Amino acid sequence: MRATVMFGAGDVRVVDVADPQLKEPTDAVVRVLRSAICGTDLLHYGAMPPDEQGMRIGHEFLGIVEETGSEVSGLTAGDLVVAPFMYADNTCSFCGEGLHTSCARGGLWGLDGVDGAQGEAVRVPCAEGTLVRLPVPADSALLPSLLTLADVFATGHHAAVTAGVGPRKTVTVIGDGAVGLSAVLAAKRLGAEEITLMGRHTERTDLGRAFGATAVIAERGEEGVERLREATGGRGTHAVLECVGSLTALETAFGVARDGGTVSRVGVPQYLEGPVGFDVFHRNVTLTGGVAPTRAYIEELLPDVLEGRVEPGRVFDRTISLEETPEGYRAMAERTALKVLVKP
Amino acid sequence: MRATVMFGAGDVRVVDVADPQLKEPTDAVVRVLRSAICGTDLLHYGAMPPDEQGMRIGHEFLGIVEETGSEVSGLTAGDLVVAPFMYADNTCSFCGEGLHTSCARGGLWGLDGVDGAQGEAVRVPCAEGTLVRLPVPADSALLPSLLTLADVFATGHHAAVTAGVGPRKTVTVIGDGAVGLSAVLAAKRLGAEEITLMGRHTERTDLGRAFGATAVIAERGEEGVERLREATGGRGTHAVLECVGSLTALETAFGVARDGGTVSRVGVPQYLEGPVGFDVFHRNVTLTGGVAPTRAYIEELLPDVLEGRVEPGRVFDRTISLEETPEGYRAMAERTALKVLVKP
Repeated sequence: MRATVMFGAGDVRVVDVADPQLKEPTDAVVRVLRSAICGTDLLHYGAMPPDEQGMRIGHEFLGIVEETGSEVSGLTAGDLVVAPFMYADNTCSFCGEGLHTSCARGGLWGLDGVDGAQGEAVRVPCAEGTLVRLPVPADSALLPSLLTLADVFATGHHAAVTAGVGPRKTVTVIGDGAVGLSAVLAAKRLGAEEITLMGRHTERTDLGRAFGATAVIAERGEEGVERLREATGGRGTHAVLECVGSLTALETAFGVARDGGTVSRVGVPQYLEGPVGFDVFHRNVTLTGGVAPTRAYIEELLPDVLEGRVEPGRVFDRTISLEETPEGYRAMAERTALKVLVKP
Repeated sequence: MRATVMFGAGDVRVVDVADPQLKEPTDAVVRVLRSAICGTDLLHYGAMPPDEQGMRIGHEFLGIVEETGSEVSGLTAGDLVVAPFMYADNTCSFCGEGLHTSCARGGLWGLDGVDGAQGEAVRVPCAEGTLVRLPVPADSALLPSLLTLADVFATGHHAAVTAGVGPRKTVTVIGDGAVGLSAVLAAKRLGAEEITLMGRHTERTDLGRAFGATAVIAERGEEGVERLREATGGRGTHAVLECVGSLTALETAFGVARDGGTVSRVGVPQYLEGPVGFDVFHRNVTLTGGVAPTRAYIEELLPDVLEGRVEPGRVFDRTISLEETPEGYRAMAERTALKVLVKP
């Protein structure tokens, strides 16, 4: 089959790879209907050392079950399913606590002999625990929104939930990428009173407003903190959803957090140490979040997507074929696309 | 009156100071019945630059109301009251959220013309919001335990509450000082399933066992982390109560936290930056806690103290007179006393 392989920074190609086959009785093979390119893929695209063997890539997909192993129940060939961005058994004690990202049997797509999602098909380990059936036809207009349950919308939701977003809570979202915009939508869905989006790309923050942002701050760093403080009587907001991952974004997050408030981060940290000394302690600011266990949230978020109450798929502003993924990476790296949908 | 003044590292004296008088209509004057020396006082005792004027010190006291300002309701001369380690109005939006330590009208004892607690009497700003009446006589045997509501027991409780301690939760407490032992007692009171105390002073960890610790680990640093991991099937505990404040203690705390777990710190951080990078993110470990708003907890904890269900006053292992506070500081600095009770 054809699949996307990254051979180094800036070097993504679509090449022939082995067709996926069942290896374990708990596996399934899924033909990919929709995949996507993620900001996390871009981190590799910007930094991967050259590697002749290459790395399979992509971790967001939905598709049709083609085959299931002998120990897989509840799934049959022809089912339309979505996969979270990490597979997991959904039975261990971590999965039971909703922390599928710490499942000992779980892992990341594209590693350890598991297919990446940006290809024609994927062998799915722990298929019964990983895959969630979607009650829509394969040509449903909802596919883009349903695909966001794999990662970005559920990741934004993780930020909002762990930050305690709800009615009467004020929220700042840092970052106007697909996750930041998804976090706005998630905060709105959870009933946040006010949502300020910190981002400076107007076409993106406009979508943030459509998703529920009540204010936008374009300034960054200390100036951005000052603006947010001015707008909140000097106090900051109860919840801060940090959707970037840089040290600057974390500093900004602490700067705009209300005393007693919570910073939840879902952008992969690009730092080893963070400013969690006396100021954060004295103000009782909590730092939470982490890699999002999206599997834990899919069933909860699904009805609102199916019934059209939220349209997280609006983050996709370009659709390409599988053969065009190199172009998709370029577009996202150059910020001419917010998020790219791949239709193999 | 006589009061304790710190003139620099290792230089504590009891001297004559002005008698406290009402300054604001919201003030009260309280004659001190019991005070205490705290680990936080010791930080100054170890590091304060020489200062001829000196600094009034002490932030834990209970006593008898002598006089109240014209705007103070609910308190009258003769009432026995306890004060939290910061005063606060108990009416602002932060106090309403249980975060009295961020009250704009609040502050610390001993600063800004406010008396320290290690003296004969104290002028209490925001008296109505700050003081809590204690329904016991002035010679009650419960006074030591009631005094811990000012700081250490309520601070341990803050750690436990913010870490989500409760039934079916496993807990590690780092530090066998008075706050660490109080955190053990608080975790036990909240129903924790297992409580491991990390500390190496046997006479202190013995009290920790009496307070509810189910295991003690004497090793520190990486060795301590390994021991705790071994004891928990490699997983760590849901809650970690960090009651020291050093960077090593914070590193240990993250090391023993279960994925998805919470580190709550109540020891004043002796660091500017902490290790909150990818590992903590990937494991979804939360960092919370902070300076404890003990005022928020006094009413909740009071009945259990009054009815003898908890005896947090057992952390006091030495009682001295006010004139002996210099000796009390020495004893705590040399670790010959765990926590010193001062009876003016």
